[in-house]
Amino acid sequence: MAIYIGYLAAIMGTICWIPQAWKAWATHDTSGLSLPSNLMFLTTVSLWLLYGILITDWPLILANICAVTAMLIIVAAKLKYK
Amino acid sequence: MAIYIGYLAAIMGTICWIPQAWKAWATHDTSGLSLPSNLMFLTTVSLWLLYGILITDWPLILANICAVTAMLIIVAAKLKYK
Repeated sequence: MAIYIGYLAAIMGTICWIPQAWKAWATHDTSGLSLPSNLMFLTTVSLWLLYGILITDWPLILANICAVTAMLIIVAAKLKYK
Repeated sequence: MAIYIGYLAAIMGTICWIPQAWKAWATHDTSGLSLPSNLMFLTTVSLWLLYGILITDWPLILANICAVTAMLIIVAAKLKYK
């Protein structure tokens, strides 16, 4: 039971920022996005990716490659359309 | 080495949405926030909290109580000031 909840959380955490990345580039409406929050979360998922690489944990690596990509797109949109 | 990177990621992931929650309520500027993304991330951290409770992992429980609180505030602001 618990393991399935963990997998579901991991999968949802991987894909959840894709709509935000899409919206930021499509609408250029980024004034409401907090740059400190998005930079800290980009740092967070980058650190998880590094941690996954250091302990050679493939689920952690793959999930965080996706999250880092989405967050880079969001932060880039925020910096471009601020 | 790896363990400190994991701790740093966990701590930053816990606090990173506080500036976004503050900004959303202070400015009422939530049009750029993606409701699907924020709802999915609220679900993600709620599932991690449930997972932490099921496996009785206190770092996971405490970190995700903080994240769930920040995400509830952001989603509430988005619904109120959309």
